[in-house]
Amino acid sequence: MGYKVWEEALAANYEATVSWRRHLHENPEPSFEEYETRKYIAEKLRSFGYEEVEEGIGGGGIVAYLRGKHDGPTIGFRADFDALKIQEATGLSFSSKNPGVMHACGHDGHTATLLSVAKVMKEYQSSLSGTVKFIFQHAEEVLPGGGKAMVEAGVLDDVDFVYGLHLRSPLEYGKVTYCSGYAMAAPDFFEIKIQGKGGHAAHPDSTVDSVVVASYVVNQLQSLISRKKDPAKSGVLTFSTFKAGDGAHNVIADTALLKGTVRTFAPEVRDMIEEKIKSMTEQICKAHDATCEVNYGRGYPALYNHEKETELIADIFKETFGDETVESTPLRMGGEDFAYFLEEKPGSFFFVNSGNEEKGIIYPHHHPKFDFDERALLLGGKCFLAIIDHYLTEKETNKVKESAVVGE
Amino acid sequence: MGYKVWEEALAANYEATVSWRRHLHENPEPSFEEYETRKYIAEKLRSFGYEEVEEGIGGGGIVAYLRGKHDGPTIGFRADFDALKIQEATGLSFSSKNPGVMHACGHDGHTATLLSVAKVMKEYQSSLSGTVKFIFQHAEEVLPGGGKAMVEAGVLDDVDFVYGLHLRSPLEYGKVTYCSGYAMAAPDFFEIKIQGKGGHAAHPDSTVDSVVVASYVVNQLQSLISRKKDPAKSGVLTFSTFKAGDGAHNVIADTALLKGTVRTFAPEVRDMIEEKIKSMTEQICKAHDATCEVNYGRGYPALYNHEKETELIADIFKETFGDETVESTPLRMGGEDFAYFLEEKPGSFFFVNSGNEEKGIIYPHHHPKFDFDERALLLGGKCFLAIIDHYLTEKETNKVKESAVVGE
Amino acid sequence: MGYKVWEEALAANYEATVSWRRHLHENPEPSFEEYETRKYIAEKLRSFGYEEVEEGIGGGGIVAYLRGKHDGPTIGFRADFDALKIQEATGLSFSSKNPGVMHACGHDGHTATLLSVAKVMKEYQSSLSGTVKFIFQHAEEVLPGGGKAMVEAGVLDDVDFVYGLHLRSPLEYGKVTYCSGYAMAAPDFFEIKIQGKGGHAAHPDSTVDSVVVASYVVNQLQSLISRKKDPAKSGVLTFSTFKAGDGAHNVIADTALLKGTVRTFAPEVRDMIEEKIKSMTEQICKAHDATCEVNYGRGYPALYNHEKETELIADIFKETFGDETVESTPLRMGGEDFAYFLEEKPGSFFFVNSGNEEKGIIYPHHHPKFDFDERALLLGGKCFLAIIDHYLTEKETNKVKESAVVGE
Amino acid sequence: MGYKVWEEALAANYEATVSWRRHLHENPEPSFEEYETRKYIAEKLRSFGYEEVEEGIGGGGIVAYLRGKHDGPTIGFRADFDALKIQEATGLSFSSKNPGVMHACGHDGHTATLLSVAKVMKEYQSSLSGTVKFIFQHAEEVLPGGGKAMVEAGVLDDVDFVYGLHLRSPLEYGKVTYCSGYAMAAPDFFEIKIQGKGGHAAHPDSTVDSVVVASYVVNQLQSLISRKKDPAKSGVLTFSTFKAGDGAHNVIADTALLKGTVRTFAPEVRDMIEEKIKSMTEQICKAHDATCEVNYGRGYPALYNHEKETELIADIFKETFGDETVESTPLRMGGEDFAYFLEEKPGSFFFVNSGNEEKGIIYPHHHPKFDFDERALLLGGKCFLAIIDHYLTEKETNKVKESAVVGE
Repeated sequence: MGYKVWEEALAANYEATVSWRRHLHENPEPSFEEYETRKYIAEKLRSFGYEEVEEGIGGGGIVAYLRGKHDGPTIGFRADFDALKIQEATGLSFSSKNPGVMHACGHDGHTATLLSVAKVMKEYQSSLSGTVKFIFQHAEEVLPGGGKAMVEAGVLDDVDFVYGLHLRSPLEYGKVTYCSGYAMAAPDFFEIKIQGKGGHAAHPDSTVDSVVVASYVVNQLQSLISRKKDPAKSGVLTFSTFKAGDGAHNVIADTALLKGTVRTFAPEVRDMIEEKIKSMTEQICKAHDATCEVNYGRGYPALYNHEKETELIADIFKETFGDETVESTPLRMGGEDFAYFLEEKPGSFFFVNSGNEEKGIIYPHHHPKFDFDERALLLGGKCFLAIIDHYLTEKETNKVKESAVVGE
Repeated sequence: MGYKVWEEALAANYEATVSWRRHLHENPEPSFEEYETRKYIAEKLRSFGYEEVEEGIGGGGIVAYLRGKHDGPTIGFRADFDALKIQEATGLSFSSKNPGVMHACGHDGHTATLLSVAKVMKEYQSSLSGTVKFIFQHAEEVLPGGGKAMVEAGVLDDVDFVYGLHLRSPLEYGKVTYCSGYAMAAPDFFEIKIQGKGGHAAHPDSTVDSVVVASYVVNQLQSLISRKKDPAKSGVLTFSTFKAGDGAHNVIADTALLKGTVRTFAPEVRDMIEEKIKSMTEQICKAHDATCEVNYGRGYPALYNHEKETELIADIFKETFGDETVESTPLRMGGEDFAYFLEEKPGSFFFVNSGNEEKGIIYPHHHPKFDFDERALLLGGKCFLAIIDHYLTEKETNKVKESAVVGE
Repeated sequence: MGYKVWEEALAANYEATVSWRRHLHENPEPSFEEYETRKYIAEKLRSFGYEEVEEGIGGGGIVAYLRGKHDGPTIGFRADFDALKIQEATGLSFSSKNPGVMHACGHDGHTATLLSVAKVMKEYQSSLSGTVKFIFQHAEEVLPGGGKAMVEAGVLDDVDFVYGLHLRSPLEYGKVTYCSGYAMAAPDFFEIKIQGKGGHAAHPDSTVDSVVVASYVVNQLQSLISRKKDPAKSGVLTFSTFKAGDGAHNVIADTALLKGTVRTFAPEVRDMIEEKIKSMTEQICKAHDATCEVNYGRGYPALYNHEKETELIADIFKETFGDETVESTPLRMGGEDFAYFLEEKPGSFFFVNSGNEEKGIIYPHHHPKFDFDERALLLGGKCFLAIIDHYLTEKETNKVKESAVVGE
Repeated sequence: MGYKVWEEALAANYEATVSWRRHLHENPEPSFEEYETRKYIAEKLRSFGYEEVEEGIGGGGIVAYLRGKHDGPTIGFRADFDALKIQEATGLSFSSKNPGVMHACGHDGHTATLLSVAKVMKEYQSSLSGTVKFIFQHAEEVLPGGGKAMVEAGVLDDVDFVYGLHLRSPLEYGKVTYCSGYAMAAPDFFEIKIQGKGGHAAHPDSTVDSVVVASYVVNQLQSLISRKKDPAKSGVLTFSTFKAGDGAHNVIADTALLKGTVRTFAPEVRDMIEEKIKSMTEQICKAHDATCEVNYGRGYPALYNHEKETELIADIFKETFGDETVESTPLRMGGEDFAYFLEEKPGSFFFVNSGNEEKGIIYPHHHPKFDFDERALLLGGKCFLAIIDHYLTEKETNKVKESAVVGE
């Protein structure tokens, strides 16, 4: 069976993989500006022997084709490679050389992992029945994201199934997890400016107190989650910022500014919350003689893992790594523009836990001290190998495959 | 294969099944008082030839054993048989003869269905490898329920897997549905008495206004759902009743009474909400110089359908009835004491839609006009047959069985 | 000087005054139905020698004229005589003989006091320069009140100044008090019916939860008092009743009923609160997809004691009873239809404290155990005598005038 | 009569008064730093012929004695002279020369007025029976104020009655107003820091949302005014500032800062509000698992105008200027440290309206464009003259006394 051999090759490439990751980590570039990173990836792919390498897809994405000798499906694997505008504080020897920019979400790891898979599999190209399309995506962190543009540019037109992974710190290294159905939220954001009428703090009757009105807005909009939303469907509404008044004790604030985020999965919940934030805020302001301006911006759509493909990889991973290594994980409120890929083609987005308490890898993503256990580079790579093995290896009795079609 | 033959026998028994259901419907008995119903069931089972019939299990339950010729697993099937204290308003020819009591939840159907399966399968006993244990449960509608007592009496001690079904009106007849994991809520309830200090409406300063305090409690406890609960986990908190004041315009109400219900799934969410309803209400009352008495009562636990058994029956049903007949259904906020059975043994609780808009079967459960399409008696019975076939029929290549063990 | 002699005569009539009061107390009649009481008063007045006695003024009022020998102003004195629909629980020997009706506000005392003044002064008629018009008013307790009708019937057309008194229990007997400007509130009342959409407590998303909406209304309307009202002007808004839900735990209430009262003084505050209760409730309901019906009813206007006449009687009373007996009292939130009299003519409404802790006279007005120290009948009568003395006695040196000198 | 002559002399000194006011306006000094202003006042007083001039009273106050030939009471007149830290924007020819400092409250006018009175009356010293003590106070605008220190230093020990005035823009020039009893509020201030627990906006359950908690605090503390305070007693509670979050959409704010002011009159209302702000905030925070730090600072006490002295000057002013010029004014929510003087000795604080719409004098006190109609310097001075005339002129027939006759 192919997998065993490939896995050994991948393990043999571990040191190189680590060095690639560290190179990327040392040279982070913010979303939409990953110029050197893009070059680095394309050069690496070419150095592995890939001839079909396309750059600038959707603005900044790179793809490379690994075409097997025999016919078969085309599997897309996606890794993202942009960094965040965060000042690194890890103290790592390979810390960011770009002040204020940091790979604080693990995209360096995603990319190194997929590069390693690309390098290793290049050797076994001829044994494959079908094609692997390696998809390196720019700008996952910043709206509108690179994913949408790549999909719109047709990156999935020749792909049958698409998969991607995300590292997860500080969840302790050792598990691969999957989530069927909605797995990551649609992360929207809003700003509400409430216009009252300022005045002297001792004479509220000649003012419209924007602090009180905005507080009532915060209070009552809780009911969107507690009463208006179907309780069987997840949703979050957070007011992250409340600003009113300039610090004086004796002045009633003219305006109050509220900012926040909405996280939803089902489109009807998303629509309802957007609509009601606007209409409720307006009505409440009207009740208090204030006016308001509500700006609501939509982020990525919710990421929906196709049930069949998710069950498939859960089975593949369990067979490959053992039951104890593979777990279901509940949906998460964060967003991810891989959602666009899964709107286009069947597939699944899975997770490789990467924390290590003993080594002090205890910080969450987007934290200035974020890091991950580099063994996750290898485990993540093996996941891709197992998927390739399932789809692109001719087998006499492919039990896993059969098992995956139960119910059809 | 056994199933085909059994199905025909079940169909042949349809008219009898309908007559049993109608008899039960005409003679409903409230929870814990189903004396005639219990006798009826036991007599029917004996009339089918069952010798091992046990009565009074956990106070009022009945079981009957169908032991196959060969070794094999023991499968428990449960049907409940109590009625509700509701005055029937269906106008059906077989309407309740007991004033104020009605089979308004379909338990008459559950019981008739399972009796029919018991009758039919008695004929095929010798062909089975393993045992079917028919479990008829009293008192599902009223706390503490009959389920808990039956489980505590050991009704599942000799059972390997346990299954049950529920009719669902007014969802249109024609579908069988399943729900993996949490499927029905833990339905708790509470009463909060807020003790303020009454007085003249014109002199609030010498009172503690229980209306205002209770309103703040209602307002702030929304945050248990909107902020304190993990948004990935479902939960509902409803204040169903708010009573303060005797109708006079000029008296500040001494006390306010709040009643309501809590619906949760994850035990940690349930614990948190119970604890916080108590502590938050207390603190808010204290803030306003009021006191309170909070009584929180726990209903049944959340019903958790075991993933493996649920996927198994989903596959079995799809294979038996076709993909288009079998659907996943989201979790529901209602409660069900079959939860206790599933805490004890692996299994699943599934649903047979039973509405019929054309025939005017459009009312929800617990409605005085509730009814169901009697074809659901047959479809529900077939589900049990298919499960028996899976577990208790010796097959050379049992594909379904294999498929069900993926990941082991 | 007249006063000294009159005072002695009043004291001599004390026992009779007490007996009249007790007769009235024993035979209370509710507002607008004081048929026997009216007869009693008219007969008494005639028995004192009054010839000009008019009955049925404004529906049920009685007046009697005491015309002096010489020219001078006409002073109106008003006493009310209706009782309340309260079941007496005092245990007094002269308790109400009419079940469910009670003189629980002291109107029996007001009337006995003024009758006594009328009797005594009849003897001294010839010495007066001007006229006293005794005004006995029906129906003070129930809207629209008798006062408005009497004023509309012209009862004050020939009156220059008008005065009235109210007993005050349980404030300890011994003080006469006055309040310049606004002294008693406009007592309005309202009912709000909030129409949500009922449903199962587990499915708030398909309902409009009237309990939550009404709670938000209660919460936010607090801001009418705390923010919208000029803080220099008094006002009260009380929600006395909140009713929603029928006691079931698992049903979201379709409607919520709020009742309450508003107490204000300045007309612009009254108008603002009425207007905003309507508009705010409407907007808040709209914000939550509910509708509402707001009924607001106006009670009596606020009672405004004319500054000049109030300062005058304060000075008169101080001269007569000594500084330590006469005090200013803050405005009160209760209503009083003497307000209509003071809208028509200058004058003042003053108070005679009538509690007696030692004798157990410790209950407030409208309490089933309400009573008053009967010595207040005498003190109240003296107040009227002193006012007569000021206006209707010819004096060489107007001592009252001197006594009023400020700043010393 | 003295007043007529004095008034003419005051009028003759008007131009000088204006020039003094403009000098002070051009050279404003902030509270506690009025070094040149103090010198200026002391020098002026000496230049008028005053020998008993004391400086540095209570840190920075100045007094001068005008002792009459005959015995009589000692009347204290107080004017304040500090400026505000405001950048002037009036465009006046005599605008502030000190950047960021401005006489935006009219204290330049108060001081020029009293200097003018001192100059004029020095000429008539021999005709007086009693003493005038001119009291110039530093630091009225900034806590702890100069008034308290001056009183503690004994500035009123030899004073029988004390009076002061305040200009009032933009109320139209032409009226002198008085307010009996509580006239200006106790202006307290507070800061509340609510400590929640920050975190990712998508995971409220692992945070304590300080925005939501602080909003509940704002909401519920409205009830201190609407429910806990005696509605007959004034009070204001304003949250002037609400700051939480740093502007990011996706972070739950760790802390929220609330600032505000409390304005009260009755000490028991002040105590209640201070106590309840602390205890309610604490309880509400506790209810939501947050903690808080509440700092409450007391400003000046409420200013209470003694009834007798207020009625006296109302009568004096009416006699002097005519009834149409003198009006009662409702209590005001601003603070004033003349309150300390009135806690020590009987007296009153009165107001001279000083706006002039035609001339564009339409801005309130503390506004960068604040100004006053300089005719108010003369009218204010006349008020002091009339008071001197009342107390320190021997009269055969005390006309003022007569004029004060009430009820006419």
